[in-house]
Amino acid sequence: MCEIAKLPGIGRRSSERLAFHLLQQPRDQAMQLATAIRDVKEKLVTCSTCFNVDKVDPCSICADTSRDHTKVCVVETVRDLLALEETGQYSGVYHVLQGHIAPLEKMGPEDLTIDTLRERVSKDKPSEVILATNPDFEGDTTASHIAKLLAAEKVPVTQLGRGMPSGSRVEYMNKSILSEAIRGRKKV
Amino acid sequence: MCEIAKLPGIGRRSSERLAFHLLQQPRDQAMQLATAIRDVKEKLVTCSTCFNVDKVDPCSICADTSRDHTKVCVVETVRDLLALEETGQYSGVYHVLQGHIAPLEKMGPEDLTIDTLRERVSKDKPSEVILATNPDFEGDTTASHIAKLLAAEKVPVTQLGRGMPSGSRVEYMNKSILSEAIRGRKKV
Repeated sequence: MCEIAKLPGIGRRSSERLAFHLLQQPRDQAMQLATAIRDVKEKLVTCSTCFNVDKVDPCSICADTSRDHTKVCVVETVRDLLALEETGQYSGVYHVLQGHIAPLEKMGPEDLTIDTLRERVSKDKPSEVILATNPDFEGDTTASHIAKLLAAEKVPVTQLGRGMPSGSRVEYMNKSILSEAIRGRKKV
Repeated sequence: MCEIAKLPGIGRRSSERLAFHLLQQPRDQAMQLATAIRDVKEKLVTCSTCFNVDKVDPCSICADTSRDHTKVCVVETVRDLLALEETGQYSGVYHVLQGHIAPLEKMGPEDLTIDTLRERVSKDKPSEVILATNPDFEGDTTASHIAKLLAAEKVPVTQLGRGMPSGSRVEYMNKSILSEAIRGRKKV
C-alpha cells in the first residue's frame, strides 16, 4: 500500500482501495499489471532524436518517413506530444524538452534538451520550428528563450495560436485571455 | 417567493432562503432593493447607436470623445461588452447584436441589430470592425454572416484571437482547441 500511495494523486484511502482490489483479483490479472509496470521501465526507451518515449529508438514518429520531417514541434512533455497527436492535424515531427525553464524549481535551460534541439535545427535546417510549450509563465519563458537561441539559425519559428478557446464564452473569459484575444486578433 | 424563483439559477429552495432573508431585513434595506429593481426598468435605456444599456442615450461609451470611434467591436450581449471593457485593452466603441444567429432558437439575422450595424459601418466607414462573438457554433455563424455582409463595405474586419487560453496546459486542451491552435500558429 505504501508503494501505491507514492503514485501521484493517490492518497492513503485510494491506495487501500486499490490494494484490496488487487488482493481480490485472480493471481494472473495482478501479475499482468506487475509485468506491465516492469515493461514501462525495461522496454520503453527515450528517442535519441526527439526524446519521445517509445519501444524503439528512433521512435515510431521519427522513423515514419510519411511524416513531414521539415517541421519540428517543440513540446514540454510526452503528454503534450500525445495531446497534439490526438488532433490528427499535425504531420511533422517533435522535440520533447523534458520540462520547462523554472528558476524556482531550479530548472534551467541546461536541464532541458535545448542544446540537442539547437544542434538538430542547425544540422537539419527545418522549414518551421513550432513552439508548443504551455501558455503559462514557465512555458512562455521557455519559448522565448528558444526563439532567441534559434534566431541565429535563421529558421522560421512559430508559436501555437493563443486567445479564446473554441467552445468558450466571451463573458466568462478572464482578463488575460481576453486581452490576448484582443491583441492577437486576425483579419477575417 | 414565486417571483424570486423565476430568476435564472434560483430554484424553490434558494427563493425561500432569499425571501426569508428579505423578511428579516430592515424595511428600508428591502425597499432599496425594490427601488433598484424598478430603476433597472425605468431608468436604463438602450443606446440607439450601439445597443449598449446605460442611463443615457447615447451611452457613456458612445458619448466618450476620448475613445477611438474608428474601431467598432461587435459583441453578442452587453455582458460580453462589460467583459471586454474590464480588460482595459480596448479603447474603441461597440455594437451589441442582442444575441446570435441560431435557427434552432428561431433567431435569424433579422432578430439582431445587424441591419443597424451595416448602416452604421456604411455611414461611418470605421478603420476596423472587430468581431467578438462567442467562439462557439452560433457565434461563429453570426461572425461569418456579418463578415460576408460587410465585405461590400470594404472595411477591414478582424476577429478575436483563437487558440489556447493563457494559463492553460497543452495536455489538458481538447482536440478542437489544439487543432485551432495548430492552424492559427503565429510567427514569433
